Amino acid sequence: MSKKAVVLYSGGLDSTTCMAIARAEGFTPYAMSFAYGQRHSVELEKAKRHAGLLGAADHQLVEIDLRRIGGSALTSETAVPKDGVKEGEIPVTYVPARNTIFLSFALGWAEVLGAFDIYIGVNALDYSGYPDCRPEYIAAFETLANLATRAGVEKTGCYRIHTPLIELSKAQIIEKGLALGVDYALTHSCYDPTPEGVACGECDSCRLRLKGFREAGIPDPVEYVRRKE
Amino acid sequence: MSKKAVVLYSGGLDSTTCMAIARAEGFTPYAMSFAYGQRHSVELEKAKRHAGLLGAADHQLVEIDLRRIGGSALTSETAVPKDGVKEGEIPVTYVPARNTIFLSFALGWAEVLGAFDIYIGVNALDYSGYPDCRPEYIAAFETLANLATRAGVEKTGCYRIHTPLIELSKAQIIEKGLALGVDYALTHSCYDPTPEGVACGECDSCRLRLKGFREAGIPDPVEYVRRKE
Repeated sequence: MSKKAVVLYSGGLDSTTCMAIARAEGFTPYAMSFAYGQRHSVELEKAKRHAGLLGAADHQLVEIDLRRIGGSALTSETAVPKDGVKEGEIPVTYVPARNTIFLSFALGWAEVLGAFDIYIGVNALDYSGYPDCRPEYIAAFETLANLATRAGVEKTGCYRIHTPLIELSKAQIIEKGLALGVDYALTHSCYDPTPEGVACGECDSCRLRLKGFREAGIPDPVEYVRRKE
Repeated sequence: MSKKAVVLYSGGLDSTTCMAIARAEGFTPYAMSFAYGQRHSVELEKAKRHAGLLGAADHQLVEIDLRRIGGSALTSETAVPKDGVKEGEIPVTYVPARNTIFLSFALGWAEVLGAFDIYIGVNALDYSGYPDCRPEYIAAFETLANLATRAGVEKTGCYRIHTPLIELSKAQIIEKGLALGVDYALTHSCYDPTPEGVACGECDSCRLRLKGFREAGIPDPVEYVRRKE
């Protein structure tokens, strides 16, 4: 029987690739998604439909209301920027403590499942502005996980936070996913889609995705309102 | 103007004392409570009513469903034990990753508020069985907080997790609270109260509380179904 791993899964390009990597590395994925008051629930609807298709043994959709906390363009009425990412600046799409909250829930579920492996599709290149996408942050969470838990006290296991995408460019992520058979038509990346779920093509996330496909020399199979590359 | 601090506040004896200490230490408390699918929502109703009376400038009640994760007598149908705490054993009332989840939300709110101080009423003596009540766990979370956040990257501030009760006995906590004017009639500690909110007097939490009042030589002002001391 293969070992269980909790995979943080939003339905986007990175986390879908991450799930395929977890499987390729011999784990049975347990997918965990969050409805956190973000503008785009489109990706969650897709996540719900696709988690099983992607090989997840179970899927948890955790509802948390980060709008009550605010502080981000993704969880408040601040406009999502459409003029590209600025070097060395933390984007307004950064959500305070989001990855810490996500990893905490994943840790709780892992502990109940008896899993010691958590996959998160963070990326330190494209998201260099996000504090909680850096390797030193992930290492600190791993240390915390082993102090926070029953297994950490009883020394019956050691938690590991897997970040297989952390050093990859978007093009390399796409190439890796395609090699593992990922169908990127089933993924959603846009921060600001139309009500029908069509990607805007202009937000940071669309730009990074389109640039990745262009650099990989492969057409992006999803539909866009307008492609700003 | 005094500095803001986020105080994790359940309405119980420890967190109420913690809020009084935060005020005494010169902070304006921002209280944060969690409805996490626990059996006893009684304490949350009281928390809602009392946070303002206790001097909180604002109160957030965050709803999260830890029952979906389970793994604890407090979030599942496992019976709450009534036969006392066993030495060296993690109690079934331990909730996987609970303090990590609570501190993560507190960190997100602190970041939005511009606060760098978080108070949590963990106790390493009475709750020696809980992995996430230990000083080394708290130190690891503090390290994480300073890597997870905008201020951690931009070096504009340093987060501190305050645990003023961590080395105190229950009797010492009560004595400290009384010296600061805490009215313990306004607190609730029971894991398994009656539907009307009367404390059972037999669960771990009631036993520890009653023992604390006995050792402090002060009568506990709350009502009990039966006092097992």
